[in-house]
Amino acid sequence: MAQARLTIDLDALCSNWQSLNALSQTDTGAVVKANAYGLGMDRVAPALAKAGARSFFVAVAEEGAALRRILGPDVEINVFSGHMAGDVALIRDAKLVPMINSIDQMLLHVESLPGHPFGIQLDSGMNRLGMEPAEWSALRDIALAQNPRLVMSHLACADEPDHAMNRQQLNAFVAMTDGIDAPRSLSATGGILLGSDYHFDMTRPGIGVYGGQPFEDARPVVGLHVPVIQTRDVQPGESVGYGNTWIAQQPTRVATIAGGYADGILRAMGAEAYVRVGEQRCKVLGRISMDLIGIDVTEVDGPVTEVSLLSQDQGVDQLADWAGTIGYEILTSLGARYARSYTGG
Amino acid sequence: MAQARLTIDLDALCSNWQSLNALSQTDTGAVVKANAYGLGMDRVAPALAKAGARSFFVAVAEEGAALRRILGPDVEINVFSGHMAGDVALIRDAKLVPMINSIDQMLLHVESLPGHPFGIQLDSGMNRLGMEPAEWSALRDIALAQNPRLVMSHLACADEPDHAMNRQQLNAFVAMTDGIDAPRSLSATGGILLGSDYHFDMTRPGIGVYGGQPFEDARPVVGLHVPVIQTRDVQPGESVGYGNTWIAQQPTRVATIAGGYADGILRAMGAEAYVRVGEQRCKVLGRISMDLIGIDVTEVDGPVTEVSLLSQDQGVDQLADWAGTIGYEILTSLGARYARSYTGG
Repeated sequence: MAQARLTIDLDALCSNWQSLNALSQTDTGAVVKANAYGLGMDRVAPALAKAGARSFFVAVAEEGAALRRILGPDVEINVFSGHMAGDVALIRDAKLVPMINSIDQMLLHVESLPGHPFGIQLDSGMNRLGMEPAEWSALRDIALAQNPRLVMSHLACADEPDHAMNRQQLNAFVAMTDGIDAPRSLSATGGILLGSDYHFDMTRPGIGVYGGQPFEDARPVVGLHVPVIQTRDVQPGESVGYGNTWIAQQPTRVATIAGGYADGILRAMGAEAYVRVGEQRCKVLGRISMDLIGIDVTEVDGPVTEVSLLSQDQGVDQLADWAGTIGYEILTSLGARYARSYTGG
Repeated sequence: MAQARLTIDLDALCSNWQSLNALSQTDTGAVVKANAYGLGMDRVAPALAKAGARSFFVAVAEEGAALRRILGPDVEINVFSGHMAGDVALIRDAKLVPMINSIDQMLLHVESLPGHPFGIQLDSGMNRLGMEPAEWSALRDIALAQNPRLVMSHLACADEPDHAMNRQQLNAFVAMTDGIDAPRSLSATGGILLGSDYHFDMTRPGIGVYGGQPFEDARPVVGLHVPVIQTRDVQPGESVGYGNTWIAQQPTRVATIAGGYADGILRAMGAEAYVRVGEQRCKVLGRISMDLIGIDVTEVDGPVTEVSLLSQDQGVDQLADWAGTIGYEILTSLGARYARSYTGG
């Protein structure tokens, strides 16, 4: 087996959701878009439903239809991109709730699926999805008369608690929605941690459920263990990997492992990254290749048959720091070539 | 449909293979590891077989077994990682040819599958996979007596034609293999372009087949077209996206498109990247989100329903430059959420 093993701890994942649910003190949904942040919607979503989640969020209608097949009829499935042209049959047949983002989407929805449930997405300042205040003013009375399932917006800077944008978006959202009867939602993981002002009637945690920042108390969910193909002794002056970017300064024992950027081990991480062999931190040597990485195992006693890239000791945010990105991208990049195994749930 | 469209031109792909085959003037294999560099082994491999490829290369035995199911019995399937513990049944049942990388692998192979075909991988200086010269000296006579299907090595710097490492590895490979009867192979795409000294009995093109550098004459293979969810007018001082990293200096028309880093649109690319709307280049605004990107469409006349990230005008190496990586990683990162369509083949 040169196939790497990806382990996903559904108990830790559900425990993270429960913790965020307890912090929310309101209804708590779950974001499972992008194949549950790369961890497998078909296993993650049923575990979260069993843990108590009743409202799920996806990015596009195709994901919603797949989720309906997985979870059956008893949950609410909300689609952030709203009602797009061509989605009528998907939304109708899978009983999806599109978050309507514009007057154009509202017209399309009521003309093609009159009476079908919908939600409203408002732009409170991020300028990404949702109706602008002026658009909302024009549509508000008509939309509210049809009992939207949810009126929501999204925070741009919630992972920076002191950023003035948070309060600014909160004020904008309140100004647009104060006094309405429909349930309201503003916060994902970051917003939950900003405090109860931000919680309204429903929260929508994503990254915290999957074990990532900004949820400091998250339990790690993912393990990634990569087999060693062979080890060799490299002498001073010899190079390892593409472009000869690493040259040995002293005798070095090098293990070649069977994983690379085609498995979502981001190439940008190479120069900074370590793996673990037991307690030992072992440096990545040279460039990450498509399917292979060189590792310095000089300090490890005995044979090395496997290394860990993700474990209890080294999480997605550590890898993200090395790659100059965020834990979310480490998760969604996890590849298709792993042998995946799930525990708990 | 908020689902983006990935188009794969199998005619262009086969034409690239034919061009590299013509340059090789020897047997020409095809590397289809990592799900054919992200483009779909189930469609790419049959097209290449139809074009004339008879020897295929994958990274791990699991990929080889999948490829055997796709292509049937009449092609040779070679596994770069060689014979790993636990692979006996896969190698035997799928009739794979492991490239033996070490004495340990050789022992495992002859003990578990006596008489089963194998190849030999030698390290000519990259220190990644393959036997060291001393190891090879010890094993050479025994191994050659069993008629290996291929004796191969791999170049570390072939995309830099003037790098001294190329000639150094060539000399090392010749020193280890001169006069043997078994077919020899040293070069992937980069090595093919270095000239006939590097071609030996078989070449193994990968990236050039898929339309990437260093094969300057490659035809583009991939198109990526992403729907617009909505457009809005943003006023000076307003921000777009996470972290408020982009702030409008003038009135700007912003389109939000339904693609993001979960679709393999690398987050690192954000600050530099453009998309195309017809002939018009349109700048990415702010950070790339998981499923969404803001685009400046101020200069586009009329409504914008779709933008192109990859097209005839803008290829994988352009995106790689923006992300600080290589075209290979752009390809292998392409996501699972696209509607994929193939032409030709």
